[in-house]
Amino acid sequence: MTPVRILGIDPGLRRTGWGVIDVVGNKLIFVACGTVTSDDKDELARRLVSLHDGLSEVVARHAPDEAAVEATFVNKDAAGTLKLGQARGIALLVPARAGLPVGEYAPNLVKKTVVGAGHAEKQQIRLMIKILLPKADPKSDDAADALAIAITHANHRGRRSLEAMLARA
Amino acid sequence: MTPVRILGIDPGLRRTGWGVIDVVGNKLIFVACGTVTSDDKDELARRLVSLHDGLSEVVARHAPDEAAVEATFVNKDAAGTLKLGQARGIALLVPARAGLPVGEYAPNLVKKTVVGAGHAEKQQIRLMIKILLPKADPKSDDAADALAIAITHANHRGRRSLEAMLARA
Repeated sequence: MTPVRILGIDPGLRRTGWGVIDVVGNKLIFVACGTVTSDDKDELARRLVSLHDGLSEVVARHAPDEAAVEATFVNKDAAGTLKLGQARGIALLVPARAGLPVGEYAPNLVKKTVVGAGHAEKQQIRLMIKILLPKADPKSDDAADALAIAITHANHRGRRSLEAMLARA
Repeated sequence: MTPVRILGIDPGLRRTGWGVIDVVGNKLIFVACGTVTSDDKDELARRLVSLHDGLSEVVARHAPDEAAVEATFVNKDAAGTLKLGQARGIALLVPARAGLPVGEYAPNLVKKTVVGAGHAEKQQIRLMIKILLPKADPKSDDAADALAIAITHANHRGRRSLEAMLARA
């Protein structure tokens, strides 16, 4: 069975988490994870270039087949939402420009998929990551969230193709 | 006197306006303007790629020295703000990746610079564009706004360098 490599991204202007997993049938295999940062003393355009270059490097190094980005539910102030949107624009652009299909998943769906409840704590997500991907050792919540997003995509795309198979049956 | 070429950008997910002017001393010369669009039937990541590629083409074709992007004041709903932020991320990224300094200007400053009042109507902006750049014939409000942003940058960067000269004196 050909593995499918998935890149999950948890966008943020200061810290963007990323996580790469391989999916072989129902099996999930940890590949790598990390955080791309931007210097908040830099001007905004320069910070977006840092995120762009960091994520481009991840895509080049790990050559994922598909990507998934958190469709962040917004309960911040307008300025915070605009900042997040700018970082999110880069997180969507980089894999799309590399020709990857890009899925978007709401945080509640990510939590529900990984933990089984829509209102899970960060700690519970990290615990489940440890169980689902024993070799993963995310150094930050952002990297852990990115792996959770990748897992959600693995789960969702499988379900979608199951639905597709049933539709074709 | 060496002309300085300025690219102004008015970002939007559906339509991003752009305008290019040359500044020679106190003289402003219209170069080109237009609109980069994305198809709202496409998925978001694909739409951002459209904006990216369109703006990259403008930068490649007109080779500006500096860029200016509207720092949109936000009075939309959170979803609209997030969308705008995503488009704005691309508008900042493209010139910054090309090595251009990127200025950001609040809409009120743009209106004040071009029309003389912070609460000008779109119509007044177009009228002043016609006076300041007689050869410009923007086909959309977005392109007119982009030219207004470029003019604001021309005005502001001149003032800045005057200040710099005074500081050095």
